[in-house]
Amino acid sequence: MSITQQSLNVSFIGNKPTSGDGNLFHAFAPARHENLADEFANVSPEQANQAIEKAAAAFPAYAKLTPAQRADFLEAIATEIEDLGDELIERAVLESGLPTGRISGERGRTTGQLRLFANVLREGSWVDARINPALPDRTPLPRVDLRRMLIPLGPVVVFGASNFPLAFSVAGGDTASALAAGCPVVVKAHPSHPGTSSLVGQAIVAAALETGMPDGVFSLLHADIDVAQQLVAHPAVKAVGFTGSRAGGLALLRVAQERTEPIPVYAEMSAVNPFVVLPGAISQDTGPNSAVTVAAGLAASITLGVGQFCTNPGLVFLLDSPKTSVFLETLTEKIRSSAPATMLNAGICRNYQKGVQQNRIIPGVHVLAEADVDAEDSQTQGRPIVLSTSAAIFLSSSALSEEVFGPTSLIVVCETEAELVECLTTLEGQLTATIYATPTELTQSETDWVSLLQAKAGRVLFGGYPTGVEVSEAITHGGPFPATSDSRSTSVGTGAILRFVRPFTYQSFPNELLPLALQNANPLGIWRNVDGKLTQSSVGS
Amino acid sequence: MSITQQSLNVSFIGNKPTSGDGNLFHAFAPARHENLADEFANVSPEQANQAIEKAAAAFPAYAKLTPAQRADFLEAIATEIEDLGDELIERAVLESGLPTGRISGERGRTTGQLRLFANVLREGSWVDARINPALPDRTPLPRVDLRRMLIPLGPVVVFGASNFPLAFSVAGGDTASALAAGCPVVVKAHPSHPGTSSLVGQAIVAAALETGMPDGVFSLLHADIDVAQQLVAHPAVKAVGFTGSRAGGLALLRVAQERTEPIPVYAEMSAVNPFVVLPGAISQDTGPNSAVTVAAGLAASITLGVGQFCTNPGLVFLLDSPKTSVFLETLTEKIRSSAPATMLNAGICRNYQKGVQQNRIIPGVHVLAEADVDAEDSQTQGRPIVLSTSAAIFLSSSALSEEVFGPTSLIVVCETEAELVECLTTLEGQLTATIYATPTELTQSETDWVSLLQAKAGRVLFGGYPTGVEVSEAITHGGPFPATSDSRSTSVGTGAILRFVRPFTYQSFPNELLPLALQNANPLGIWRNVDGKLTQSSVGS
Repeated sequence: MSITQQSLNVSFIGNKPTSGDGNLFHAFAPARHENLADEFANVSPEQANQAIEKAAAAFPAYAKLTPAQRADFLEAIATEIEDLGDELIERAVLESGLPTGRISGERGRTTGQLRLFANVLREGSWVDARINPALPDRTPLPRVDLRRMLIPLGPVVVFGASNFPLAFSVAGGDTASALAAGCPVVVKAHPSHPGTSSLVGQAIVAAALETGMPDGVFSLLHADIDVAQQLVAHPAVKAVGFTGSRAGGLALLRVAQERTEPIPVYAEMSAVNPFVVLPGAISQDTGPNSAVTVAAGLAASITLGVGQFCTNPGLVFLLDSPKTSVFLETLTEKIRSSAPATMLNAGICRNYQKGVQQNRIIPGVHVLAEADVDAEDSQTQGRPIVLSTSAAIFLSSSALSEEVFGPTSLIVVCETEAELVECLTTLEGQLTATIYATPTELTQSETDWVSLLQAKAGRVLFGGYPTGVEVSEAITHGGPFPATSDSRSTSVGTGAILRFVRPFTYQSFPNELLPLALQNANPLGIWRNVDGKLTQSSVGS
Repeated sequence: MSITQQSLNVSFIGNKPTSGDGNLFHAFAPARHENLADEFANVSPEQANQAIEKAAAAFPAYAKLTPAQRADFLEAIATEIEDLGDELIERAVLESGLPTGRISGERGRTTGQLRLFANVLREGSWVDARINPALPDRTPLPRVDLRRMLIPLGPVVVFGASNFPLAFSVAGGDTASALAAGCPVVVKAHPSHPGTSSLVGQAIVAAALETGMPDGVFSLLHADIDVAQQLVAHPAVKAVGFTGSRAGGLALLRVAQERTEPIPVYAEMSAVNPFVVLPGAISQDTGPNSAVTVAAGLAASITLGVGQFCTNPGLVFLLDSPKTSVFLETLTEKIRSSAPATMLNAGICRNYQKGVQQNRIIPGVHVLAEADVDAEDSQTQGRPIVLSTSAAIFLSSSALSEEVFGPTSLIVVCETEAELVECLTTLEGQLTATIYATPTELTQSETDWVSLLQAKAGRVLFGGYPTGVEVSEAITHGGPFPATSDSRSTSVGTGAILRFVRPFTYQSFPNELLPLALQNANPLGIWRNVDGKLTQSSVGS
């Protein structure tokens, strides 16, 4: 399928490119601070329903494809995205204001993620197949043949995120994992990068056609927020994936809760990612355990990507020690020498400035450091700034523990361990928590630091920085509310596929009517649990 | 701990036997149709909060125990329950009206279930450990060390069910799986069997003391419904397990949804368990594929345990064939010769009679057969009855697809395959669906029967009867709403433990600070996913 200017601004209802019947809008180029020429049209409520109905109709056929067939589809999507070439990179840069290198890397992450899920499907053990063969002679009662595996939930609605126009958007982790699980996906495009979304949508449709997927396995909709909510309310929709603001995620959760049938909403919403520094970890004068090194790395993590990461360290807790001043001085110096940069859209930039302003006027909160250079355009550029305060002020102002999305952090200097524990105890759920400490500080303290942080987060780091999320088997990008709406999940890594499935048992089925994963001969060669033991062997008929 | 009459009627707030400060009530003996002498006292709201606070305080220590320590606790509970001896059996028979043989078997199921979860813990692989060792030399970016496993959610509130006074009650599947996962449990006892509940609570407390569990790991509360709802609303509670009516489950779900922090509610609520018979499966004159055999088995399944099973076949769909009349005649004969029997409590018996009455007066619904013998006491005994109707009537009366809990079923005779498909399509979510068919009828029909039923249920049976739920690895006792409030779960079998955990990642932790499941040497010898491959080997440091 060739990519033409004409088709840049369409929605896809299944494989069909469709002009929306709803409101018109323009894409915006944050770095130029201007609207782009292309006009986009949102879909009407009726068009949105058509997409869901197509997804529901495609579901039984799509769910029954072999793992290899779904893997082919995912790999074809990756190739089609690569085949978009520079046009995609340029468009994403234009619409996001992010640098070319970052977008290029993000494309690699996106295609890598699709291929990773294809590998998960080809390896196949993720379905958690469990077999209890019949025991006709068991006393007092015989046992019937039971075979269980994970099966897809049904159509999934995915909301593209603004801060990763590729990796958490149309063909991002939510879409890749839902398609891998066997669920048709209807994506609601993020209006911050509509052209990027249409291009990627076109690539997915091309891949679907190429690999013979049932029409409706994927739709891409430009849509108003009320139509988006209607998608979540539709009875045929069985799960929702969202990455974005807390207000946005909670609004979708409310819509889902008002349905007759509750459905899972996987909203990854907000986090301040506490970063805790105990004295031992910065006690050296130089090297990895020095205040200079840790603080410099922290400054880089705070300002990386103009602070527009879910895992940005927004709250730093220092337990006061002789090295506190060196730590703060280094941080000050690094933040001062950092530069303002273009943020993803004008709304994010406005909210950033508002959030910083609200915090800095709280009595007892001070500006520790701000980038020396002022923003060239304060409506689109975020200027790094770090605030500081005491534990007492922090504990008395709940606003200080709320996320300010952008290149900022609040440093809380605690006089005593008790103060620090109290601060951490009051925190809400987080995606990550980082602790800098010596092993001895962790094992010989009265405080169980690891349990304390574990209760608050989906990932705890011993040293290092929370920005940078590996796409792998062992990652957890999730955490207790309000980091996410469902702590039983990760939205990054191979575990993300488990969000879109449910266990299902076939009882006493003839072998040839079972899915491949459960047949006697184990034709997929996957690991299966047979009467409690993992094995790749076949089972008796 | 000795079991004395004095302590029969207490609640346990952690290990402490406590007299409730709330309303008094008596246990009821349905078979005798009279109140028992013992007086029970519900706890006050303050006492309920104390139990939750004790559970929250016990959580970090309990979560950190080794799998073997938690297994010891579960096994000790099983032994303590057995040590209650005949006193427990007699009390449960008295309070439930169920026969001694059934209660005795249910005790075996309960202790077997506890020991099964102990085995799951000792085997250990259920934590889904995943390791991505550090790759410091990877380009363009090094990889940090990531180690993920499932960790417990926190305190769980469990509601005992009336229909299994042992296996789905105080030490039932919800409690066993939550304790196995590492979650403290607060049980709200079912008022239908308060003495049984106190006895089992006492056994659990004895086991907790014996194995040195942290106080608060288990509490048992006799409580009013408003206090029960308060338990669900408490911020320290992280999940809820419930088996009971749809109204009851939905009420708890609403309370959970109104919390600031949403929590999982695993409510197993209602099902009519459609039972579909295609002509080929009853085309023989004798043997397993005859109308006589299938109908006789169905009658037994309908009346088993006075129909008081979640998996009772409440809706039977026959695709009309020359054998329909034989099928209906056999069913009629078997139901007529069945006997009324005591139901679990007066409320259930009243609702049963009301439900049957509401359906039988619908125009076009006929009584196919009723037990010849009338109930000796209509306030406590359920009399088997089977109704019949046409597809047209079924489709026009939504009430006919609602569960009537007791020994009854509605037979819908469909003239055409299209009618049958339409009936099945309108059904809500179910625990089970059963299909009788020849393999050819399934593979060569235009209708994809298996996909159709799979979309509606957690378990699909090819022949057999849905009553009788194996406690094993491969069972799914769950299903789409409203069979349960969360289709991603099973409440029976080893998979039930997965309801009470979340994924968690340790990043760059020193080996000695990691839990045993994730340490380099793999000291537990469990199966782990290392860079995508399952292995029991150690990993490099």
